[in-house]
Amino acid sequence: MKDKISKQDAIFYSHKMAQLSKALWKAIEKDWQDWIKPFKLNINEHHILWIAYHLKGASISEISKYGVMHVSTAFNFSKKLEERGLLQFSKRENDKRNTYIELTEKGTDLLEETLKEYEPNNNSVLRGVLPMTEMYGKLPEFLDLSALIKEIYGDEYMEILERSLENIEDETDILENPTHIEAYKSTTSKSS
Amino acid sequence: MKDKISKQDAIFYSHKMAQLSKALWKAIEKDWQDWIKPFKLNINEHHILWIAYHLKGASISEISKYGVMHVSTAFNFSKKLEERGLLQFSKRENDKRNTYIELTEKGTDLLEETLKEYEPNNNSVLRGVLPMTEMYGKLPEFLDLSALIKEIYGDEYMEILERSLENIEDETDILENPTHIEAYKSTTSKSS
Repeated sequence: MKDKISKQDAIFYSHKMAQLSKALWKAIEKDWQDWIKPFKLNINEHHILWIAYHLKGASISEISKYGVMHVSTAFNFSKKLEERGLLQFSKRENDKRNTYIELTEKGTDLLEETLKEYEPNNNSVLRGVLPMTEMYGKLPEFLDLSALIKEIYGDEYMEILERSLENIEDETDILENPTHIEAYKSTTSKSS
Repeated sequence: MKDKISKQDAIFYSHKMAQLSKALWKAIEKDWQDWIKPFKLNINEHHILWIAYHLKGASISEISKYGVMHVSTAFNFSKKLEERGLLQFSKRENDKRNTYIELTEKGTDLLEETLKEYEPNNNSVLRGVLPMTEMYGKLPEFLDLSALIKEIYGDEYMEILERSLENIEDETDILENPTHIEAYKSTTSKSS
């Protein structure tokens, strides 16, 4: 089919992707909200702390780009976090034009507290990929999804993602040991 | 790894999925908004019209489930669409407990108008999958993503999705012919 597609197929395909994508994000969003609610943070605030923590400081435009939020959203929620003493604003010697944020000790402690409280068993994605993980012998990689995001958002987005993930790998000390994850009750099989 | 996973790997994995999923949904959401803005509809309203159109009438709870929106959101936006004369509420003889909605002629016309105005070239997903499509010889199917959504939302969700897609296949008459889709400028290759 190369680069020609009927309008009908285009609508069919993009509607299916819209449904799957909305469903996935709404499930992830709900889990995320439930996870951080006890810390009096909303998702945007937690996402800002998370990015600044993993990148060891970040500019507002990095927060906006990587957090997929508007620059004004990134700035306004950063302001609220500053008022709570969780981060501080700064300029960098070699880049006077951008505003940077950096977590305070209190902000770092709070973010690490949330990571400690993270419970894999409450995560729909982890529970949902369990059957595939058993089938494949490893967690599914969603390579097509990564390739699609790389196309839409560009290399830089994926680079920041990889960079923040490398930093997660270095944080073994704050996290504990293997957890057992429960799969969803199979809805495909017969009732017992 | 079966059903054991370290907490660190769990955070690593679910963070990556959260980032990819948020990025995908935000891109789709923006395209969707841009598409239907001229019709003075928001995404929820268009989604309700879409579902009711494709299922040939639907209950508020089907709208809520399939549209991944709260029941009250489904109801309130349906009310607004009713006020604009785009749909009507009803009860069904064999199911007095649920409220059903059905598009009016005006609602059907408006929905079909939006489909006619759909421009595949403005769709990030279609443009983004183009390189994979050329590589695979067909549109990528995102089977892992479908499998994950089926695990989280259950069979019924996927059944409604398939059902509404079957109906799209029957609507050839309102849609025109092959469109050329432009890929993103490659960001992976060198600058010229």
